Amino acid sequence: MKNIEVCLTPELFSKYNLENKIVVIVDILRATSIITTMFQNGLKKLIPVNSLEEARKYKNNGYLVAAERNGKKVDFADFGNSPFEFTSENILGKTLVYSTTNGTNTINIASKSESVLIASFLNLTSVTNYLKNQQMDILILCSGWKGNYCIEDSLFAGALADSLLNYKKFTTNCDSVTSSVDLWNVAKADIHQYIKRIYQYNRLTDLGFESIASHCFKVDLNEVLPVLRKNYIVNLKNSL
Amino acid sequence: MKNIEVCLTPELFSKYNLENKIVVIVDILRATSIITTMFQNGLKKLIPVNSLEEARKYKNNGYLVAAERNGKKVDFADFGNSPFEFTSENILGKTLVYSTTNGTNTINIASKSESVLIASFLNLTSVTNYLKNQQMDILILCSGWKGNYCIEDSLFAGALADSLLNYKKFTTNCDSVTSSVDLWNVAKADIHQYIKRIYQYNRLTDLGFESIASHCFKVDLNEVLPVLRKNYIVNLKNSL
Repeated sequence: MKNIEVCLTPELFSKYNLENKIVVIVDILRATSIITTMFQNGLKKLIPVNSLEEARKYKNNGYLVAAERNGKKVDFADFGNSPFEFTSENILGKTLVYSTTNGTNTINIASKSESVLIASFLNLTSVTNYLKNQQMDILILCSGWKGNYCIEDSLFAGALADSLLNYKKFTTNCDSVTSSVDLWNVAKADIHQYIKRIYQYNRLTDLGFESIASHCFKVDLNEVLPVLRKNYIVNLKNSL
Repeated sequence: MKNIEVCLTPELFSKYNLENKIVVIVDILRATSIITTMFQNGLKKLIPVNSLEEARKYKNNGYLVAAERNGKKVDFADFGNSPFEFTSENILGKTLVYSTTNGTNTINIASKSESVLIASFLNLTSVTNYLKNQQMDILILCSGWKGNYCIEDSLFAGALADSLLNYKKFTTNCDSVTSSVDLWNVAKADIHQYIKRIYQYNRLTDLGFESIASHCFKVDLNEVLPVLRKNYIVNLKNSL
């Protein structure tokens, strides 16, 4: 049997043993939703960086940069943090450097794990199908918000865990899985109504980003499998 | 309007501003359930200590000591960690020193707050009635398990927040409240069935403590209001 765990915020990541585990990174609003969109539209390679200083260095060396802080595009960046900016026209075949308030930090925290996958509602089934054929335990790492818990990542963790637990090879003894699955079962009947209760959805709506925020809860718009290789992300689907 | 927040584990406590807040400490399995039982049975004063060294010093100075580690009574202690040990016969009018693996540590973490209350399912309505008449915001602090999330404390936080949000003076913008309330609404129809999915319940059952564990989910068996005063706990009901 393969075990499933959920880590509800990066602050709790040190509580987990990483041996023989695939870490699945989740930042529904918005980093992992945007990363899946980028690869769907043909991005070749993504370099996640924590600091704006690093992002600026890449920019000065001629790289395309997407960078956001507290919901807003950084002045020197080519792109902000809307999935609608990353059209095929803008990014097909390109390499991009990416830095966000929250999500890219989670990727770097997880980067010492053996295997790291990027997931969102937009590629849920693709991620489920990939994971069900792997021979490792699964740790779903929620990015949360500034180190604390957020519902939207737990909801996604619940959706993914619920799908996987339908296969007999998976089990769990992790309370964070149980509560995330329960939460998903409360929300799934009308997810677009449910999200109105989420703090981060309301914050983005107040900033004028309602259409971006609700886009991130659409299920299976794409089939990409972004995976971390050393310090960059590629779409595993391109090499399968 | 008074705001309600939930902190899902002590590891996240530093994310919260404590100004003008009542901190409500929860450790359903088992510290706060046991503390409410102790006061129901007439305990006069409880001194929570973190370490077994401190507990032993008190013991050597003639105090009664209840101390548990990893589910088991410590050798030098007078009591372990079963609510059934703390009968009126054993503790009426007495002072007791108390140390547990998990829960007493949470109490000490919260001890710098202006106002600290101890809550469990056993005194849920008593706590609700007290809080609804206060003029401070409310932060429900879950003890979790070894720093990580546990369902049973979140469930209680949901039950308490749900009761308080029925009063117009309370509001929330905290995702941990929203998900805890949702979880409680899933569980409450058949709490004694639901708890079989909880890690800690199963762990205690495996240790032979099933009756103790299920006792901790009984609602409103008592009406005490344990509050922290400097370094000890008393029952506020005795001075109201």
